Amino acid sequence: MSVKLELLCIGNELLIGKTLNTNAHWLAKRATALGAMVQRITVVSDDVNEIATLIREAFERKPHFIITTGGLGPTFDDKTLEGIAKGLGRRLEVNNKALKMVIGKYESFLKEGKIERVELTPSRIKMATFPVGAKPLRNPVGTAPGMMAKVKDTFLIALPGVPPEMEAIFEGSVMPVFKKYAGKSVFFEASIYVDGIMESSLAPLIDKVMHDNPHVYIKSHVYIKSHLQVEGKKSHIELHFSTTAEKSKIAKNWLDKAIAQMSELVK
Amino acid sequence: MSVKLELLCIGNELLIGKTLNTNAHWLAKRATALGAMVQRITVVSDDVNEIATLIREAFERKPHFIITTGGLGPTFDDKTLEGIAKGLGRRLEVNNKALKMVIGKYESFLKEGKIERVELTPSRIKMATFPVGAKPLRNPVGTAPGMMAKVKDTFLIALPGVPPEMEAIFEGSVMPVFKKYAGKSVFFEASIYVDGIMESSLAPLIDKVMHDNPHVYIKSHVYIKSHLQVEGKKSHIELHFSTTAEKSKIAKNWLDKAIAQMSELVK
Repeated sequence: MSVKLELLCIGNELLIGKTLNTNAHWLAKRATALGAMVQRITVVSDDVNEIATLIREAFERKPHFIITTGGLGPTFDDKTLEGIAKGLGRRLEVNNKALKMVIGKYESFLKEGKIERVELTPSRIKMATFPVGAKPLRNPVGTAPGMMAKVKDTFLIALPGVPPEMEAIFEGSVMPVFKKYAGKSVFFEASIYVDGIMESSLAPLIDKVMHDNPHVYIKSHVYIKSHLQVEGKKSHIELHFSTTAEKSKIAKNWLDKAIAQMSELVK
Repeated sequence: MSVKLELLCIGNELLIGKTLNTNAHWLAKRATALGAMVQRITVVSDDVNEIATLIREAFERKPHFIITTGGLGPTFDDKTLEGIAKGLGRRLEVNNKALKMVIGKYESFLKEGKIERVELTPSRIKMATFPVGAKPLRNPVGTAPGMMAKVKDTFLIALPGVPPEMEAIFEGSVMPVFKKYAGKSVFFEASIYVDGIMESSLAPLIDKVMHDNPHVYIKSHVYIKSHLQVEGKKSHIELHFSTTAEKSKIAKNWLDKAIAQMSELVK
């Protein structure tokens, strides 16, 4: 059975189309490569009630992992930890380990001459104010720590929205946990490209190859170069083959067999 | 009151991190510019039950518009119309107007010599098989028509996943409806960039400017150029100001005032 994952992305900038959601893309790719199955990705605004509702909804679907991105920083609109606390029905408290991490950052800024003194302002303490029972994850790039909490059978992980911070915490603190649970299966993918045949004519061939190769998922993607080009001889179609298995040799064999059959059919 | 919108993006390729969700980004930007407010973006897999569940959930939140992307094509994994029908509890039937559109496309392919005869295969009829009561939207770029249905007070719109097709149907058939309902408000945004001040030190200044300018939303975005760079003198921070008003002159005045105050504070 695959390890199931949900991604919850928090940020008005995603809902107004200011920012392209590269975090969801990066995490989905990374988690899939590590053998997990992303079930759903949801984007909501910087609103405590929206976040709390989404957290409750995600827990109802009982995924093994829930990863949030965004909303961990020092400004008023960083509301993820408050939203998580509300969603879980837990109190917020200053987490001592998280506070040490935050203070450590400002001490290093002091040493580097970037600030004149270490001052624990409310905005800075906010970054260490966690739901009860959660633990901080070291942020090697920025100031705000990540957060992890085990709630029933689900790991709830909160990562910052700044991409290099999110990626660094994932690789350093989340990946090991992830690998332990999800690492039993491998994901394999490969593509072939077809020209001069319409997608609607490929449809029955895809059905046949999928029927004969029950472990392989085949999806066609049409690439259109201009608005004037329509489904027809010039459209460039990608046939994407993917599979998940416990051993990479098995996965590779499954894909090879399906690709060989399809290549023969479209020749 | 703003017109509320939900985006539902359907496709395994988004959940495995193969495809970056540029459709959600494009639609969010476009809808925001047209005066609507995107409340939520959700991505689910090519699974009838997942789609049906998501449709029901979205309707419970009673947005004015629900727009789906992906899953309208001829292949087995194109399940959006079936999922919508299941979610709404409606039968599927061949929609005569949609079928005419599909036949028209293949007739033009015949004229262009791209195909030898017009053949209505099950895969092709599938693209015209709609939930009862829905109407097709002309696709000027590809073969599969879009779909629109008014359900209670919500417009439910299904667009293809191929970006140029999605954009063309939105501009041609959705935008006019959208403008009629959402077009009463305008969205304005502007950014200033700050160097040499930490985000945690900006936080109280943002609080002050937002307090003094209640119509303006200010959000800080940290840009990190490398993994070695941390919050400090070298981090480049964008302060993004946005507002929605009934008249562009009012919106612009609100933004100008807030930006002037902030510029004074960070000088």
